[in-house]
Amino acid sequence: MTALLGAMSQVGGLWVAAALSEGDRELARGPAGGRMEMPGAEGTYQVRLLDVPEDRYDGYYNRISNGILWFAHHYLWDTVRQPVFDEAVDAAWSDYVAVNRQFAEALAEEAERLGGPCAFLVQDYHLALVPRMLRELRPDATIAHFSHTAIAGLTYLRIVPVKIREGVLRGMLGADVLGFHSQMWAENFLMSARSLPGVRADLLRSRLVTEGREVAVRIHPISIDPHGLRAEAATPEVARRRRELNRWRGDNRLILRVDRLELSKNIVRGFRAYALFLRTHPEWRRRVRFLALLSPSRMDLPEYREYGAECLEAAEEVNREFGDEAWQPVEVRVKDDHPGALAAYGIYDVLLVNPIFDGMNLVAMEGPLLNRRGGVLVLSRNAGAYWRMGRHALAINPFDLRETAEAIAHALEMPREERLRRARNLARLVLTNPPERWVRGQLEDLERARRRRGRIRSP
Amino acid sequence: MTALLGAMSQVGGLWVAAALSEGDRELARGPAGGRMEMPGAEGTYQVRLLDVPEDRYDGYYNRISNGILWFAHHYLWDTVRQPVFDEAVDAAWSDYVAVNRQFAEALAEEAERLGGPCAFLVQDYHLALVPRMLRELRPDATIAHFSHTAIAGLTYLRIVPVKIREGVLRGMLGADVLGFHSQMWAENFLMSARSLPGVRADLLRSRLVTEGREVAVRIHPISIDPHGLRAEAATPEVARRRRELNRWRGDNRLILRVDRLELSKNIVRGFRAYALFLRTHPEWRRRVRFLALLSPSRMDLPEYREYGAECLEAAEEVNREFGDEAWQPVEVRVKDDHPGALAAYGIYDVLLVNPIFDGMNLVAMEGPLLNRRGGVLVLSRNAGAYWRMGRHALAINPFDLRETAEAIAHALEMPREERLRRARNLARLVLTNPPERWVRGQLEDLERARRRRGRIRSP
Repeated sequence: MTALLGAMSQVGGLWVAAALSEGDRELARGPAGGRMEMPGAEGTYQVRLLDVPEDRYDGYYNRISNGILWFAHHYLWDTVRQPVFDEAVDAAWSDYVAVNRQFAEALAEEAERLGGPCAFLVQDYHLALVPRMLRELRPDATIAHFSHTAIAGLTYLRIVPVKIREGVLRGMLGADVLGFHSQMWAENFLMSARSLPGVRADLLRSRLVTEGREVAVRIHPISIDPHGLRAEAATPEVARRRRELNRWRGDNRLILRVDRLELSKNIVRGFRAYALFLRTHPEWRRRVRFLALLSPSRMDLPEYREYGAECLEAAEEVNREFGDEAWQPVEVRVKDDHPGALAAYGIYDVLLVNPIFDGMNLVAMEGPLLNRRGGVLVLSRNAGAYWRMGRHALAINPFDLRETAEAIAHALEMPREERLRRARNLARLVLTNPPERWVRGQLEDLERARRRRGRIRSP
Repeated sequence: MTALLGAMSQVGGLWVAAALSEGDRELARGPAGGRMEMPGAEGTYQVRLLDVPEDRYDGYYNRISNGILWFAHHYLWDTVRQPVFDEAVDAAWSDYVAVNRQFAEALAEEAERLGGPCAFLVQDYHLALVPRMLRELRPDATIAHFSHTAIAGLTYLRIVPVKIREGVLRGMLGADVLGFHSQMWAENFLMSARSLPGVRADLLRSRLVTEGREVAVRIHPISIDPHGLRAEAATPEVARRRRELNRWRGDNRLILRVDRLELSKNIVRGFRAYALFLRTHPEWRRRVRFLALLSPSRMDLPEYREYGAECLEAAEEVNREFGDEAWQPVEVRVKDDHPGALAAYGIYDVLLVNPIFDGMNLVAMEGPLLNRRGGVLVLSRNAGAYWRMGRHALAINPFDLRETAEAIAHALEMPREERLRRARNLARLVLTNPPERWVRGQLEDLERARRRRGRIRSP
């Protein structure tokens, strides 16, 4: 986001976003129509806040975006029992359509106001319909859409009601360029889209043709801002928290996980794999501690509240089985605590990143960038980050407790030299892939698309 | 199977199968080594029964084949919680490898004994490793493998432990030809296989290249034997059962489902959709009955026992909500009752076939072939049969109760003429696609593969 806003301040761009706080909503309703100027890295950029009615926001955000699309793209359903679609889905879908339309209309309006040729960057699954709606409002526009999540395969996406599945796919196809974090997500989209009537796919050139238009499918793995993050970690507050954590760990090695409390993050299996590790490697008992920093997420959804309780229970089980008065094997801290996470990144020996499926996963980059102990990254093969970082991590199948437990043991027992080499390589990957590169890739795609549109006319 | 054995009796083939009953096991251990001659449609064919040790059979069949591969290919896991792989999987996988090896060795041995050039037809996910093992034993062999199930997409298959996923994919790649029931399953295999190092895919020509060999991927939707089934349905026993069922239904229209009691068959959502139909179409109460004929299946697996209880409970809920002394909306009969199913096929008004995912689904063919009332087929878009029969059925998303409930209403209210036209078209599709055609397709594939192998030498 920072990188995107930085780029926008260079070109005098405008960012349209939903007002979330009550204050922002008032601004959105105010005389300036939610428009304001913000300072950016190089110049200013404009913002326009949209006043999305609260009840509509619930259907749009909680039910469709996070209750259906997120579940589909991360394969989270207990398919034999869930999902069950009924009339309630229709109302929520109308909300999703309405909010997407509100965005598309605001974007078209602002483009009109700003004048000149315009290019649009639309972000994520919450706004999957915007490209097509915008295309209808501004047939001359150059439009890119970027997906930050995993993307469901062709077969699994058929779980979603036809209207929603086709709506989302055709909505995204309104763009000139579609961006994804990894090849698997891009291919899953290509295969789903080509199953629609009237859509042809050229898999080798990674593009789709529909309604006489070409849609390029591109891979741009996102990264974090290394200098910004290092600056954030260099504060006295973070140093103080690091000292606290070092006292807490004592002589123990530290296994760390930092995650949203999110179904796809696979927190319970992480604790169970740790238990298996302690069971099969008793020599490590009383010499290691597992710290889980979990920030609460989507507590409006009952699945998330239940899962939170299961996570705490799984941690408690490990403590009951292996702990004693002198040694508590796991500690779970559930709160938003960015300075605490930055402090913990500095001092872990093992960072466990084991999502079921994950679009990218930024923790797998933040940790290695800030770590100072040659800590080892244990990384799920199903995270987008695996395609970039996998070579220097210990790769695991997140469903396989044994492989995960062995990776933890391997990480703890790895010779210092190998640890340092892997850690250096991981940090280098983060440093050499700054987010500006991700933004530049998208802007170049847009430029190419604009030139292509200049050559080819729609029929 | 009948069609395959018919074809084998024409060419004097030999069928290798695992002994299941105690009697068969004794034969397998006997002096003839489990070999015997069987009468076929045209001549005889040979059988060789294999004595698979019972404890090994459990790991092979219950744990790997039905506990992992079946779940993966039908997307049945509650991914946030299941599966969890641990050491037990390794032992079961060794069993699976050992049984597959037993089959491969027996096949190679019999081919040696019979002499001459030999071709092998390997059936289904239980024997996924046989093609590769056989290739190693008989590099000159022509080998086909046919998958009767749905096939997991690239992403979902990554849930399975690496060793099993790669073992199964590379095992199947040992064949010259791989057969599937529908394009979706074939494409899912192609996409998974091409993600392996050293495998190239030509998606347009639907083939894979690995180790200097070509593997053709072909689609052959299976069918039922229409004349055999009609003969079975023409017995006095079936006629008697039909009269009984007609008395039971009285003046009610009949909604029917016939299924194994199987997680993928989506039985609970079927009842819930029926409840929604009764709720939103009260005019149909006391005018319709739902008969569910369920044959017990895989009761060795706890998931199946639990699901059976959930199915009965869901039916009971419908009866509690809508039933009274004079009218019971649903009846569930759990037993193996082939004559009962044949009788019911004759007299349904609506046949509900709503699997979550299904390789093909033969009920969707048996019903329309035997039905005499212009009954309507309500069919899941995720069943292989949908690609063949979908046009003449009412298509549903099996997760969408509302769409399913509306399809039931639509079916019951459809004008007689349209009903009859659809029913005729469905029956014609079954009659014009006899299983001999499915067998012939596979044999032609094998012949093409044999000629190709004659031209191209492995490096």
